[in-house]
Amino acid sequence: MFESARMPQKMTKKSFKKLEPELREALLAAQLPVIEKQQFSTLILVDGLDGAGKGEAVARLYGWMDARHLVCNAYGEPMDEARLRPPLWRYWRDLPAKGETAIVFGSWYQSLLRDRIYKKIDEDAFEKGLVRIRRFEEMLANEDVLILKFWFVLPKDVQKERLKKVEKKSAGRHVLADWAALKHHKKASETGEKIILETSMGFAPWFVIPSQDPEYRDVALGQTVARSMQLKLEDGEPTSVAAPPVVGGLKRETAVDAIDLTETLEKTEYEELRKKYQDQLSELSDRKSMSKTGVVLVFQGNDAAGKGGAIRRLIRPLDPRIYKVHSISAPTDEEKARPYLWRFWRRVPRKGHFAIFDRSWYERVLVERVEGFAGHDDWLRAYNEINEFEQELTDFGYTVCKFWLAISEEEQLRRFKAREETVYKQHKITDEDWRNRLKWDQYAIAAGDMVDRTSTHYAPWTLVSAENKKHARVKVLKTICDRLDEVL
Amino acid sequence: MFESARMPQKMTKKSFKKLEPELREALLAAQLPVIEKQQFSTLILVDGLDGAGKGEAVARLYGWMDARHLVCNAYGEPMDEARLRPPLWRYWRDLPAKGETAIVFGSWYQSLLRDRIYKKIDEDAFEKGLVRIRRFEEMLANEDVLILKFWFVLPKDVQKERLKKVEKKSAGRHVLADWAALKHHKKASETGEKIILETSMGFAPWFVIPSQDPEYRDVALGQTVARSMQLKLEDGEPTSVAAPPVVGGLKRETAVDAIDLTETLEKTEYEELRKKYQDQLSELSDRKSMSKTGVVLVFQGNDAAGKGGAIRRLIRPLDPRIYKVHSISAPTDEEKARPYLWRFWRRVPRKGHFAIFDRSWYERVLVERVEGFAGHDDWLRAYNEINEFEQELTDFGYTVCKFWLAISEEEQLRRFKAREETVYKQHKITDEDWRNRLKWDQYAIAAGDMVDRTSTHYAPWTLVSAENKKHARVKVLKTICDRLDEVL
Repeated sequence: MFESARMPQKMTKKSFKKLEPELREALLAAQLPVIEKQQFSTLILVDGLDGAGKGEAVARLYGWMDARHLVCNAYGEPMDEARLRPPLWRYWRDLPAKGETAIVFGSWYQSLLRDRIYKKIDEDAFEKGLVRIRRFEEMLANEDVLILKFWFVLPKDVQKERLKKVEKKSAGRHVLADWAALKHHKKASETGEKIILETSMGFAPWFVIPSQDPEYRDVALGQTVARSMQLKLEDGEPTSVAAPPVVGGLKRETAVDAIDLTETLEKTEYEELRKKYQDQLSELSDRKSMSKTGVVLVFQGNDAAGKGGAIRRLIRPLDPRIYKVHSISAPTDEEKARPYLWRFWRRVPRKGHFAIFDRSWYERVLVERVEGFAGHDDWLRAYNEINEFEQELTDFGYTVCKFWLAISEEEQLRRFKAREETVYKQHKITDEDWRNRLKWDQYAIAAGDMVDRTSTHYAPWTLVSAENKKHARVKVLKTICDRLDEVL
Repeated sequence: MFESARMPQKMTKKSFKKLEPELREALLAAQLPVIEKQQFSTLILVDGLDGAGKGEAVARLYGWMDARHLVCNAYGEPMDEARLRPPLWRYWRDLPAKGETAIVFGSWYQSLLRDRIYKKIDEDAFEKGLVRIRRFEEMLANEDVLILKFWFVLPKDVQKERLKKVEKKSAGRHVLADWAALKHHKKASETGEKIILETSMGFAPWFVIPSQDPEYRDVALGQTVARSMQLKLEDGEPTSVAAPPVVGGLKRETAVDAIDLTETLEKTEYEELRKKYQDQLSELSDRKSMSKTGVVLVFQGNDAAGKGGAIRRLIRPLDPRIYKVHSISAPTDEEKARPYLWRFWRRVPRKGHFAIFDRSWYERVLVERVEGFAGHDDWLRAYNEINEFEQELTDFGYTVCKFWLAISEEEQLRRFKAREETVYKQHKITDEDWRNRLKWDQYAIAAGDMVDRTSTHYAPWTLVSAENKKHARVKVLKTICDRLDEVL
């Protein structure tokens, strides 16, 4: 998860300089009516990796807002007063009054995170802790507390580099703990992802802040705070906002943008590999152990990226009695009358079978989001609902592979034109395709968010460059073979 | 929990006869617009103890409603089609369309309940199962499914008697399983309570149906369905309703109504016992192991029931440095500006100390509910919030004792008058007391609901007859001594 957040988001000093006054204004414009109306209090939780510059970011935010109504509470190891009371006590003690804002360093997530990283508690105890936090926050939200949670992330190499610098500067002081943090980078990241996945609710959302570039980081923090306060003021309801798609006028680079579209495959090599993996797939699907799993394959991608072609190469080696291809278009009346996942549950294969989805439940957070067919809250909650749906499948022993087939805007144009010019391909291109194309950027952001929020360890996304169709088809085949070979 | 539901609620055949036509009318008046408007579908889950007559109740409901838009789905052991797919698949398959209603026998709770009763899964796995159900239902509710969950309860002796009758009639067929159920009565009841506690959400509430009297049972079911559908139609929002306080015009008897007010104590015996327990309390509170717990004592009860007097006898043997009495009246400005539990969290004692609450957080579901100071949804969610608050305390090693001091309406009148006539007691009686008295029945129902929903194994209520003050004081002292003796 959160692949995008680890990408090198950048902001030049120059654009930061230009942007800062606007941002300060926006923050004050949001905070002042909050102070005046006293309808809710605000908690800003600051968590994430050591070395990501949480302190710096908060210092800047502190300078931007009206500090008379802003308090910063940092929690380390509890002192006597707190140690003799239940763990939540000190957070309750410091809860701000309506109209006020508190920045929380070392929130109620901290001890849970640390205990899990250092294996003081097992997975079940960790999950139970998350459930209780969820309820705690739900109660606060119901009691007019706006909860904004920020998770600061860094790639491991950047974390390392940064810690080195700090070491040099401080001649070794305070750095020991941070080096320990680096050692646990992977476990901390994974545990963090789990926390975010399980406790990102509409009423208390997590925002993942890419922290490589300090200017980008701080603007992302500031903009999110301003926007969330404003939203909460407007509808009087708990806010629910995704990570800001645009920070300071900059397009956010997502994991999908980072797909290397130059990957290619020569014809002879392609034929060889295609045959190899098709044979392997045939063999795998014949195994007796196939009866213990069900295979769910999901194909999403840019229009004209070649989903259909990839699927055709994939089913060729399969016995037609054990697979079904589901092309998902508009829902039927029967489907519209029920929860949106119903149309996919009814297509869940029996064990021993393949279900191949040419488009899928992910349309909820792609076309339905971009075109406004699903309301803001509806597509936002869909990420979790989808994760849970896929977990139901994988917990039952299913294998779920999801492919995002990516092409460039230019390549899409070439393919659209080719379709119009070829008689037997004309049915494949409609006015809607051209209309969607105009919203390329919005779809790119939606796809990035989708990958960030639904690439789980039990059902990961495979990002496929489809600029070269041959490369894409082989990559799809190989990925499925590799996964099945592991499972069967 | 659910003490009230196990009381012998009764309805005469005669009042049932009179009531039935009205109820049918109400059900159809609720169902017809639901069918017509197709805004939501309805799931009616029927769960609870074997032998409680779930089948009979549903048969009656079926007869009362428009059966063309009502389907009854019973789930036993899954058949092949379902066994080869994830457990939730068959429930998804049968999900009704908007406008339609499905009665669900053997819901998604069934296997979890059974696995827990027969110890096939441990407590952690059970809790994890509950979390997933919670999310599943939340998603359905967000997707316009009205979920009503009914839990049918019976006292154990009635269950036994009923199973005997069935055995006679059926000459032993189908009865084996039911006898097994009886054997597990206690575990089934406890597990059921846990389920209800953890999964009773505003958007998918549980209703506990006392099932001793078939007429009462069926009217309670029918009225709740009618009322919930109507509520959902009116505000278009997920309904959240407590158990109906009045079934078929009959006042519901609660656990609080069942307190035996004739209990009494003679003066000499009182003096002896009071001294005995005060000495014991003094000894207990001096123990070294006191530093491992904190003691939270809650006193609630009818006005003039003698909370103050009981507290005074209780603190006498205690070192003043280790206890604090908190008399809870209207919240301060500072308190009003924060979540309602804040004023109690700030009074949570250190370990080794006593905090004694003369009125408490329970005012939320008593006076605030009855007087309308808290909105319907707010006091309804408070039961769970309070349970979680007390769990935070007990998980940290605290001891929580809660006392409900009960007197009769007549005794209260006598005490009110006595207070007015005694100069030094006049300050204890106000106009508000007289006003509250006029709502005696409403307060009685609120108290009953409170005990039903917040008497947990970690923080149980002790119901105390306070008609005789001496009896009450000794009972309070003895209860605290017994609990501390266990703990220390």
